[in-house]
Amino acid sequence: MNGPDSPDSGDNEAAAIDGPMFESLIREQVPFIGAYGIRVESLGRGWMTLKLPFGEAFLRPGGSISGPVLFALADVALYGAVMTRIGRADMAVTSSMTINFLHRPPAEAVLATGRLLKLGRRLAYGEVVLSSFESSSDAEPVAHATGTYAIPGN
Amino acid sequence: MNGPDSPDSGDNEAAAIDGPMFESLIREQVPFIGAYGIRVESLGRGWMTLKLPFGEAFLRPGGSISGPVLFALADVALYGAVMTRIGRADMAVTSSMTINFLHRPPAEAVLATGRLLKLGRRLAYGEVVLSSFESSSDAEPVAHATGTYAIPGN
Amino acid sequence: MNGPDSPDSGDNEAAAIDGPMFESLIREQVPFIGAYGIRVESLGRGWMTLKLPFGEAFLRPGGSISGPVLFALADVALYGAVMTRIGRADMAVTSSMTINFLHRPPAEAVLATGRLLKLGRRLAYGEVVLSSFESSSDAEPVAHATGTYAIPGN
Amino acid sequence: MNGPDSPDSGDNEAAAIDGPMFESLIREQVPFIGAYGIRVESLGRGWMTLKLPFGEAFLRPGGSISGPVLFALADVALYGAVMTRIGRADMAVTSSMTINFLHRPPAEAVLATGRLLKLGRRLAYGEVVLSSFESSSDAEPVAHATGTYAIPGN
Repeated sequence: MNGPDSPDSGDNEAAAIDGPMFESLIREQVPFIGAYGIRVESLGRGWMTLKLPFGEAFLRPGGSISGPVLFALADVALYGAVMTRIGRADMAVTSSMTINFLHRPPAEAVLATGRLLKLGRRLAYGEVVLSSFESSSDAEPVAHATGTYAIPGN
Repeated sequence: MNGPDSPDSGDNEAAAIDGPMFESLIREQVPFIGAYGIRVESLGRGWMTLKLPFGEAFLRPGGSISGPVLFALADVALYGAVMTRIGRADMAVTSSMTINFLHRPPAEAVLATGRLLKLGRRLAYGEVVLSSFESSSDAEPVAHATGTYAIPGN
Repeated sequence: MNGPDSPDSGDNEAAAIDGPMFESLIREQVPFIGAYGIRVESLGRGWMTLKLPFGEAFLRPGGSISGPVLFALADVALYGAVMTRIGRADMAVTSSMTINFLHRPPAEAVLATGRLLKLGRRLAYGEVVLSSFESSSDAEPVAHATGTYAIPGN
Repeated sequence: MNGPDSPDSGDNEAAAIDGPMFESLIREQVPFIGAYGIRVESLGRGWMTLKLPFGEAFLRPGGSISGPVLFALADVALYGAVMTRIGRADMAVTSSMTINFLHRPPAEAVLATGRLLKLGRRLAYGEVVLSSFESSSDAEPVAHATGTYAIPGN
């Protein structure tokens, strides 16, 4: 499966973490979010695509997926992208995140691709594109986020 | 109880929604977040202070409250501040939010005060200050958010 | 000429404005920024690449291009991307912008590519990637911005 | 002279820089912005209020002050707020800034008050409120910004 068009992209082998390892990490460490059932779809060096299965509990009035659920997914996708470069880093923390909600996401699964734009010694910065799962690949995203992660131990 | 120092501040009577009404609204409409047990501490025209009780499930590695939980709280606090001006507006939606995580919040309750800086015909904009409950009032906040809400029916 | 990898990309013919028209527009309408000497490098439907020539006046202590200059360039690049879709829209205004400074830009020209991620009836949203002109295409960008433009007359 | 309602506020004596020193610093070091004629109105420990005199060159179509000019002012106001705590720090750099344009600023002077919300060892975070000079103090701000500054030598 091909990843995003990025200088950081690469194949699975080059990534510093694999999908099952990342999935078990979020289930153990952030049970609150682990319970969402987030799955790794694909990943490479510098990027990771997650799939959030649809859940009734995620809906807000009007029948769209609620904003905080999309934020949580974006946050995990960026965390995953960082881990594809630096490996398992339990204590890495989000230091800031900006999210723009572009279209009301319908009651279905959501895909999120996190991609690093910078990996420094102390900070990583990247963006996340969130799309509805069943929409065509040409459709505009449902949300877009950018964020900064503080790298531990530096 | 005094509210924030703001031109929009006022007493309870002037607000377009009251605490119990807002609490029941979030329990009914966003059950996912309603289950957090968020309570209204105080409110006035243009602002609302919420309290998120501590819950083990909110913790992330290192023992601090996880970022998506703080985001959800900030989102609800700004939604509440909008409602103190325009009343019950089920379909109002967040259009963007920027959150900065400033200090790791300890394992205790969190207070969030949302305050409007602009209420236009179609958009509201405001900020949210999040603090640890037991910290002194002089302490720096644990997080700070700004966001835009789209006003329905316009 | 190839544009960014985007569903909105297209050839010059499809764009609602051309380079010389856009350049004269910014010189006439925002003389303060027009004086920077910004040039259109290439454009297509939904995106525009600008080049800011190097100027001594743009430097800040340490010899890198100052942040407000990069912000101005990003703002114009997103304005340009909007115009490639809706044509000349004098009164369109930025409603918000988030910029992250990733690497100190050396004392040389800067390229900025603005790209729309959403074009709605009232709002457009997009991102801007800023790079140093002489750096290789593999290098990390010097800055990244996202922003919202209010569409006039709606 | 009273400063903003903040735990960081204090009197002039406690601040680590004074107005004339800061004004000469920006004239020497960032001539591009120094030429705007920005003046320090007042300052205290953790905050600084600047005044940007009106200039014809700052106008954009429609007769309001252009966004990049407001951004530059906000950036300098936050830089100033940092300096009131850590003193002259030539190499401090903005690492990110989010600005929301709330009302079109009329063709008059603009006031900007930067205020720190966090001062850490490596990063400072604060907000800036921008208002039209001649508007009443009750008026909504014309813009609001938040930003992060990297502290040098750490």
